[in-house]
Amino acid sequence: MIRQAVIMAGGLGSRLKGRTVSMPKGFLEIDGMPIVERSVQKLFAAGVEEIIIGTGHCSEWYERLAEKYHCITLVRNDRYADTGSMGTLACCAPKVYGDFLLLESDLIYDDIGLAVLLNDHARNVILASGATKSGDEVYLETDADKFLRKHSKNKAELGSVYGELVGITKLTKETLDAMVDFCTAHLSDQPKMEYETAMAAVSSSTASASDKIAVNKIERYVWREIDDESHLEMAVNTVFPLIKENEALRSVRREVLLNPGPATTTDSVKYAQVCADICPRELEFGNVMEWIATELSAFVGTPGDIETVLFGGSGTAADEVMISSCVPDGAKLLIVDNGAYGARFAKIASVYKLDFDVYKSSGFMPLDVKAVETRLLEGKYTHFAVVYHETTTGLLNPVPDLARFCRKHGIVTIVDAVSAFAAIPIDMEKDCIDFMASTSNKNIQGMAGIAFVFCRKAELEKTKAYPMRNYYLNLWDQYANFKKTKQTRFTPPVQAMYSLRQAIIETKIETIAGRYARYSACWDEIVKAVKRLGLEMLVPETAQSKLITAIIDPTSPKYKFDDLHDLAREHSFTIYPGKLSDANTFRIANIGDIRPAEMTAFTKVLESYVKGL
Amino acid sequence: MIRQAVIMAGGLGSRLKGRTVSMPKGFLEIDGMPIVERSVQKLFAAGVEEIIIGTGHCSEWYERLAEKYHCITLVRNDRYADTGSMGTLACCAPKVYGDFLLLESDLIYDDIGLAVLLNDHARNVILASGATKSGDEVYLETDADKFLRKHSKNKAELGSVYGELVGITKLTKETLDAMVDFCTAHLSDQPKMEYETAMAAVSSSTASASDKIAVNKIERYVWREIDDESHLEMAVNTVFPLIKENEALRSVRREVLLNPGPATTTDSVKYAQVCADICPRELEFGNVMEWIATELSAFVGTPGDIETVLFGGSGTAADEVMISSCVPDGAKLLIVDNGAYGARFAKIASVYKLDFDVYKSSGFMPLDVKAVETRLLEGKYTHFAVVYHETTTGLLNPVPDLARFCRKHGIVTIVDAVSAFAAIPIDMEKDCIDFMASTSNKNIQGMAGIAFVFCRKAELEKTKAYPMRNYYLNLWDQYANFKKTKQTRFTPPVQAMYSLRQAIIETKIETIAGRYARYSACWDEIVKAVKRLGLEMLVPETAQSKLITAIIDPTSPKYKFDDLHDLAREHSFTIYPGKLSDANTFRIANIGDIRPAEMTAFTKVLESYVKGL
Repeated sequence: MIRQAVIMAGGLGSRLKGRTVSMPKGFLEIDGMPIVERSVQKLFAAGVEEIIIGTGHCSEWYERLAEKYHCITLVRNDRYADTGSMGTLACCAPKVYGDFLLLESDLIYDDIGLAVLLNDHARNVILASGATKSGDEVYLETDADKFLRKHSKNKAELGSVYGELVGITKLTKETLDAMVDFCTAHLSDQPKMEYETAMAAVSSSTASASDKIAVNKIERYVWREIDDESHLEMAVNTVFPLIKENEALRSVRREVLLNPGPATTTDSVKYAQVCADICPRELEFGNVMEWIATELSAFVGTPGDIETVLFGGSGTAADEVMISSCVPDGAKLLIVDNGAYGARFAKIASVYKLDFDVYKSSGFMPLDVKAVETRLLEGKYTHFAVVYHETTTGLLNPVPDLARFCRKHGIVTIVDAVSAFAAIPIDMEKDCIDFMASTSNKNIQGMAGIAFVFCRKAELEKTKAYPMRNYYLNLWDQYANFKKTKQTRFTPPVQAMYSLRQAIIETKIETIAGRYARYSACWDEIVKAVKRLGLEMLVPETAQSKLITAIIDPTSPKYKFDDLHDLAREHSFTIYPGKLSDANTFRIANIGDIRPAEMTAFTKVLESYVKGL
Repeated sequence: MIRQAVIMAGGLGSRLKGRTVSMPKGFLEIDGMPIVERSVQKLFAAGVEEIIIGTGHCSEWYERLAEKYHCITLVRNDRYADTGSMGTLACCAPKVYGDFLLLESDLIYDDIGLAVLLNDHARNVILASGATKSGDEVYLETDADKFLRKHSKNKAELGSVYGELVGITKLTKETLDAMVDFCTAHLSDQPKMEYETAMAAVSSSTASASDKIAVNKIERYVWREIDDESHLEMAVNTVFPLIKENEALRSVRREVLLNPGPATTTDSVKYAQVCADICPRELEFGNVMEWIATELSAFVGTPGDIETVLFGGSGTAADEVMISSCVPDGAKLLIVDNGAYGARFAKIASVYKLDFDVYKSSGFMPLDVKAVETRLLEGKYTHFAVVYHETTTGLLNPVPDLARFCRKHGIVTIVDAVSAFAAIPIDMEKDCIDFMASTSNKNIQGMAGIAFVFCRKAELEKTKAYPMRNYYLNLWDQYANFKKTKQTRFTPPVQAMYSLRQAIIETKIETIAGRYARYSACWDEIVKAVKRLGLEMLVPETAQSKLITAIIDPTSPKYKFDDLHDLAREHSFTIYPGKLSDANTFRIANIGDIRPAEMTAFTKVLESYVKGL
């Protein structure tokens, strides 16, 4: 699994003259975006967790880029004017901890090149292409096994030409270290060493096949390095349109899901599912799951204090894990029911014959915190279960207030945050939540199939002694087994895990606060439309989650949910009927990989339907 | 969802002269395979369930093809010599029941063209390319909205040329019917009508955008129609190598999993996960799940008599569904424990405090059928649970014998067929099995994440009255809700479902008997190697499943499982440690999309390791 990329971006770009006097080459714009920014986006989409950029000339441009994209690490090569690309790479080397991708900053390329390198069995491998006739080719010579032997800009210096260096390479940490050693040894005689020189030296000097550097050639690979004005012209007029066509062929038809999950996903999350087959009991996969659990914990607290336990199943499975595993015999549980998911908690508690009561509250009016608190104390409850965000109606429950009260009185809190997590910022420690459930296919924007329970470690430890009421959904066994073996007890949904990993990467880049801001901007579009069209919302605006809006059905006798649904679907929007039996509503969720402009487009469909009534 | 394709293959191919006098054009070979066979493979890989081929000239060639590939339906156009492609298409039309792909038989093409059409929002859409300069182009003229207006081989007849017709089209049944009507109306004046004439007529005569035929142009699409000798030369020398390079870029690194599941999958199963986002409560998705359940039932009996109930979870989840849902209060259960999975049954039964006993038997010697039968009667058991194939050791239990005995004595049978289903042919009716569990990621060769329980309808109905012992894994609720709504109670693993659909298509083509023959041939390679290398198998050959082989550890003190594992992994093979605590073994499974030659390659790795000890 490749987790890091390094972009060498220290150079002066002097052949581009005026254009790069006060700007790094990577910031040349094509189709309205700096070429290095597009490269950054492609790398993150390919599953890279961290991009290390080695800067130099005009490094402040990269500082601004790093502010925009979390998960970029900058390293400045202060001697950029006196060193070559290898000098910049050497500055970055201490930040690299494993196999990584190495790129030049002045490239435009078809993103399939990244997929090809990541998929290559070789751990050291250079991407090459057939003849580009660009006028600035770096030719590669290989041995009989297609390992790099030599490189040159001058064909005559090579015995034979196998391909052209693209500027995208996959390397091990060990190879990088050997390259840095080679560079250090030649500081005096080759101060301006290019990284390809070090690669060729390392590859040709080792006898071991696994340390050599393979060359993977795509004859018709579409790419361009931009070193001078003629390259830029080629890039804009010829190469970029071809890249766009190739990438469009692989893009997936956009359907905007306005149902409350599964949510719309990015193409990169979809493609993360396509990977080489792996046995989930391999350590390599255990490390992926451990990373997922740790990063999920980090979204809601401090990993270690918060443990995330993964299960194959839906959000309801996670709810059942909590109710069946976290309430010991002799405990007394109060469940708030102000929607379908609160009622489901109660149903599960009844199946397991727990000692529980239900606090029933309106499905669309805010919960009375004081009344719940009074009830909690009067009933001598030990455990309290509540839904953070009722997608039934879009009602947000005051969970932090209630949970803090519970903590003060020694009551354990069990929270269904299935549709709140990764949208509403939650800090389990500050908010005093003990157990909290969510799923891979809601606001975290992954694929369906994985349920998870966040646990405050101290409370989790206690469940070890609790009765086992089922097998598959037992929290302690699942946790303890994973801690011991880095394996889930039973076969996990492997491909959904890889897509969840990608979804986490994308969430880290956006940040949960940034995501909630985007969701809220989408919600604003709905609210504006509702008001404009004279419709009514079920829940008072201030009590809403801003994640889903229950809209009361238009009064016209002509209104049929199915008609509205089908019209929306024709426009690639999927909407959802209401769920409350005592109110006729339809629901518009605004979660997932959607943009305010798409919500605006949807409101126009809604408007055309409502006006036609 | 496109379920059918039609290939028009009636023509004489007369421009290819001698080559096609006694052979249809589609059987021209490139790289050792008839071009139409490669097209058939690409269509099935793209998710087509049935290919209808309209034949004529030398139709016996197609009859042989249909014997090789199940799911091909042949329709002969007896008047092929006097009609054009539209005549052949009209013959096929009655077999078409929905949206479908339409192809010419004499094409080679990059399979991304199929993906692009399937992904296109338009339901009627022609694939077009930029200029090919092939000398036999069919040019397309479109209107301002890129709908087909006219076609011609003569540019001068068109107002403008938008692209060239490739010969791959997606159409609705309604459009097909309109084309057939047009053809029928012109039987006398245009007896040799080509299908593109009917398409242009239908598209240009309708006012409704949804009935028009869109044109999706890929400027640099790689394809070739082969009408004459020069086309064939171009196809072999230029086009085919390009197609191969393009498709190789998208292929996934091959890792051969010799662990007992998840099993190695095809690339087409992997890519089936990449599809437009969909809300699983949409009827369209309900139909996919219903198809999956029906086809799964059909593998083991008669759908309707056998009902398949789908869950999000692992094989153990399905086992827990059965134990917790299918044994009423007051029942008495006997569980055979001769391996880890039998023991797991017992663990689950104990968690639910059922009245059960364990029949313990050797993990590597065949089960004593008579002794089990005697025990069943003496203990007055009402329910009997057994594992079909113990992957712990590779031991096959005599389930049909035991189940038939149970049926005779009114005992309900609960069978874990997690690692038997879709390899060992099972007929639940004949074999008298009442409930049987399996999963998506073993021999059916799909992705992990879906558990299913096959139920004899009559027994399933009884479970309605049984106590609900958990919520997520309750069989009756899951079944009844799906029957009523075509929705699972909780969010299913959507993408895993699409890959399971693809896996089922591929299983139907291979057939379960064919799959078991392939697996057995793989197993033969292991057994041969074991004998050659002087190793020993734990289970007597005749009692083995031929799906997994437990091999006793070499006696050399230098032997370390991890060394063997790591060496195998370097060669892209994943193996698995043993599981029986009282025997030191390692295990080689031979399930999944693997070939005997790959097993042979693995045995060479094994040999090099063993000889090095």
